[in-house]
Amino acid sequence: MASAGLSNRGRLLVTCPDRPGLIATLSELLFRHGANIVNLDQYAENPGQGMFFMRLEFDLPPDADGLAVVEPELSEVAQRFQMQWRLTPASQRKRLAVFVSREDHCLKELLWQCQTGEIPADIAVVISNHPVAEATARQFEVPFFYVPVTPQNKEEAEARQLQIVEESKADVVVLARYMQILSPKMLAPWQNRIINIHHSFLPAFVGANPYRQAFERGVKLIGATAHYVTADLDQGPIIEQDVHRVDHRYHVEDLRRLGRHLERMVLARAVRWHAEDRILVHQNRTVVFP
Amino acid sequence: MASAGLSNRGRLLVTCPDRPGLIATLSELLFRHGANIVNLDQYAENPGQGMFFMRLEFDLPPDADGLAVVEPELSEVAQRFQMQWRLTPASQRKRLAVFVSREDHCLKELLWQCQTGEIPADIAVVISNHPVAEATARQFEVPFFYVPVTPQNKEEAEARQLQIVEESKADVVVLARYMQILSPKMLAPWQNRIINIHHSFLPAFVGANPYRQAFERGVKLIGATAHYVTADLDQGPIIEQDVHRVDHRYHVEDLRRLGRHLERMVLARAVRWHAEDRILVHQNRTVVFP
Amino acid sequence: MASAGLSNRGRLLVTCPDRPGLIATLSELLFRHGANIVNLDQYAENPGQGMFFMRLEFDLPPDADGLAVVEPELSEVAQRFQMQWRLTPASQRKRLAVFVSREDHCLKELLWQCQTGEIPADIAVVISNHPVAEATARQFEVPFFYVPVTPQNKEEAEARQLQIVEESKADVVVLARYMQILSPKMLAPWQNRIINIHHSFLPAFVGANPYRQAFERGVKLIGATAHYVTADLDQGPIIEQDVHRVDHRYHVEDLRRLGRHLERMVLARAVRWHAEDRILVHQNRTVVFP
Amino acid sequence: MASAGLSNRGRLLVTCPDRPGLIATLSELLFRHGANIVNLDQYAENPGQGMFFMRLEFDLPPDADGLAVVEPELSEVAQRFQMQWRLTPASQRKRLAVFVSREDHCLKELLWQCQTGEIPADIAVVISNHPVAEATARQFEVPFFYVPVTPQNKEEAEARQLQIVEESKADVVVLARYMQILSPKMLAPWQNRIINIHHSFLPAFVGANPYRQAFERGVKLIGATAHYVTADLDQGPIIEQDVHRVDHRYHVEDLRRLGRHLERMVLARAVRWHAEDRILVHQNRTVVFP
Repeated sequence: MASAGLSNRGRLLVTCPDRPGLIATLSELLFRHGANIVNLDQYAENPGQGMFFMRLEFDLPPDADGLAVVEPELSEVAQRFQMQWRLTPASQRKRLAVFVSREDHCLKELLWQCQTGEIPADIAVVISNHPVAEATARQFEVPFFYVPVTPQNKEEAEARQLQIVEESKADVVVLARYMQILSPKMLAPWQNRIINIHHSFLPAFVGANPYRQAFERGVKLIGATAHYVTADLDQGPIIEQDVHRVDHRYHVEDLRRLGRHLERMVLARAVRWHAEDRILVHQNRTVVFP
Repeated sequence: MASAGLSNRGRLLVTCPDRPGLIATLSELLFRHGANIVNLDQYAENPGQGMFFMRLEFDLPPDADGLAVVEPELSEVAQRFQMQWRLTPASQRKRLAVFVSREDHCLKELLWQCQTGEIPADIAVVISNHPVAEATARQFEVPFFYVPVTPQNKEEAEARQLQIVEESKADVVVLARYMQILSPKMLAPWQNRIINIHHSFLPAFVGANPYRQAFERGVKLIGATAHYVTADLDQGPIIEQDVHRVDHRYHVEDLRRLGRHLERMVLARAVRWHAEDRILVHQNRTVVFP
Repeated sequence: MASAGLSNRGRLLVTCPDRPGLIATLSELLFRHGANIVNLDQYAENPGQGMFFMRLEFDLPPDADGLAVVEPELSEVAQRFQMQWRLTPASQRKRLAVFVSREDHCLKELLWQCQTGEIPADIAVVISNHPVAEATARQFEVPFFYVPVTPQNKEEAEARQLQIVEESKADVVVLARYMQILSPKMLAPWQNRIINIHHSFLPAFVGANPYRQAFERGVKLIGATAHYVTADLDQGPIIEQDVHRVDHRYHVEDLRRLGRHLERMVLARAVRWHAEDRILVHQNRTVVFP
Repeated sequence: MASAGLSNRGRLLVTCPDRPGLIATLSELLFRHGANIVNLDQYAENPGQGMFFMRLEFDLPPDADGLAVVEPELSEVAQRFQMQWRLTPASQRKRLAVFVSREDHCLKELLWQCQTGEIPADIAVVISNHPVAEATARQFEVPFFYVPVTPQNKEEAEARQLQIVEESKADVVVLARYMQILSPKMLAPWQNRIINIHHSFLPAFVGANPYRQAFERGVKLIGATAHYVTADLDQGPIIEQDVHRVDHRYHVEDLRRLGRHLERMVLARAVRWHAEDRILVHQNRTVVFP
């Protein structure tokens, strides 16, 4: 997990049908360019027959001229093996656009962890349908936009939000307890790049007020789930989940209080993994490389 | 948690509307009989207004003539405070009738923990719709009955099962991965005395094949749930739940294997708590005293 | 766990030799004053022979004239049963003096949770041997005092710290990653009122640099421990501990990063329990009522 | 984690100084023999400078003539890169010699999990310094040897044990709560092949009676640790650890009871990982590939 100098480090993510020679071909390609493989994680869901997933971190020699040197050959190999691939420089930090409503505990955790470097990303902008989070954002010197959303203005509001996100040059959207549903039109260009925190152990307690639902069902553990947002509410690919033990003494309010801790931890982990290019999505399931 | 000599120890379980004087009246009553309170756990869901739940363990003096000495007065107090109550001697071990189908890991865990005393109960009989568990039961010298169940003979089979249970003098039924649904007629006389283990984190993945469902939803934790059986499938009051972390590498078979450990631990805990009279049920939720 | 109006709520903590009649006597006393018992938690380490510990929360009637009305009788009962006891009004929030050095994650968590009410206490003052935490304290409008400590000035520095603590009217001291050892003289008047967070699973890795020790020993879980401070370094009564799974990929820096989360959660829980009068200390062990 | 047909599957474990070309060379070598890489896990402790660890599972073509076909080339590559390496056929199940004293819960768990296939290994023999475990071993049709150990006969007893282990053709020794210390002479030929379960969270509570030590220290979590045995008591490389939450109500006996569950789970996981060739040892720390 040591990071060290990242200036010449690349991260390659690959999805393709599994077949012999994949690792040999890619590692040989990198070796020819003098690269040292720092991390290689792969997963074959059904060796020789199903899909193959890989995350490869490598260091090019100090005198190499950036990741561009390996791209033409990678592109050629990718075509040969029907690969979907993505190559990113480890030095290029992700930029987050954080959406929030009234409760700001998740926002605060993200601001904090980005500041201390635990999440290697920058918060480019905070957008809210309530003015309450403004002070928090300002305190961390992050631009804040108040975009009220009503049933009447929903379409313009989303257009305004999208514009703000684009102008902020964000490449990930984080719904940090944002209590509005995004329209399919808004989701489309951001597939697998919008992360939401749901305040229950999905798929238990989808929809509204999950802590009340949990209380009424009398569960002995409450949970939180971070997932990519899709057009199906609370059905997107799960990135991370965690739970906390409760008992009969916990009223709905106690579950909410306890749940806030879970939510911020689970969301922060999911955002960190996304920022470190550790996540691949396949058929509504995630592969999260350690 | 120390047990020591239990010969003159009583356990009193109480449910009633909360009001001042409850604890004073009961503890004074016991003190008058020379009893020492060993454990007192109570819970008022909404002090002064909602329900009050209590579990009280007490030792009568060595020369006392059994729990019967306090019953008449208890009965009078109970009427005054509209109490539902239950008084049991700690020395009287519960007798379990264990139902099982093909998979016997939960049965084995129960046999084992009853043998070592971790669960202070005796297994009176094992009943199965498959002959496979017979050897295991015999090995622990527990009577085994093979009662095949088909769509055609279901009614007679249940009658036969009930008869066996009654003849075994069991006071709890444990469905230890018994894959048949009991009819409401069979459930009625056993309310809050039939414990089932469901192989998921309820209410996620109700119904058949929860590990496949969990795999397809791509959850990052799998769970198991022990609950009292009611006429609504998988909807009864939850006694205990636990989870285990998984990741993308876990196929359905791996989830099943890991789940077996969860199932036996969660079921064993629930059965132990029931055997120790720690559980009260109110409005489909359990109060489990520590 | 519901709180509601606390204006006439009292918390009674009792330690004494166990014997019959304790609960009857105390609950009868309270009932005579019209009190309703809201929570009663007790623990007898060896029923009838060892020590007895109790925490009792009760609501006096709205028209009662404060907790003072029960004190004379309590005092008399206490003498009869050789009780150590403490009666506090639930409405009286504890005041914390937080000591911190360079790392401010624990301080931030406390400021945050006191602000949101998760910890029902107020931070009266922040004292540090480094100036770095000043901005954070100011941001939450908490007085900050920079008291440099060197081998040469240690005695005066402690005198100055004590003076600040007293002037702040604090009743608890929290060492939130304060990297100086307090002298026995400073500890004496604050017995069981100074809470420290140690960054390991005590008693493993006492002393300096526990994350490096943990790395070198190759443990698979790292931990954090909140405890009351005594003259024996890292040997005081443990209040709370928790752990997090790690593996071979975690370097010392990764353990530190992960540990920071553990530390703030574990310390915040311990401080909350202390603020809610849930903790009794007996022979270097804590009884923490749920 | 899917296993499928293992007949032509090999597992290669490698430890060597990290340098560019390692993965390319090995994967190319395997590809030349038509192998498909099923799992590749690697870890570079300090990329480009420190040590490199790898576990590689691969399937040779169905018509290949066993793993022997790749050995000569592997041997040559190993020399070039200063590799320590080990190549084992996945189809060759490990054989365990289990040592046990009076408490047989760990033995039972191993017998059970080997029987159900959860641990892909066979128990070749059970050796005990007490006769109590004989019935359990017989029941699973495993040879049992009673070898009493006294201060006087220790040397002959160990010689006898070694002889039994050798005759059983075991390749791993598991100390499943075996309460005798093995002499360095006995350990020498079995380096990193003797697994012990210690009933505490090491390095806390080394030595005798760890549950009493834990009780006296008042810890809030108890643990168990599986480790390879070295000449330094309780100091060998840790394979796996886990903990369980306890509180003030747990007496020493309760800790023991709870601990038994931890011990069997932690030991079973460690033995499974060893049986699957997932563990490398380096400088008293383990790399456990997932």
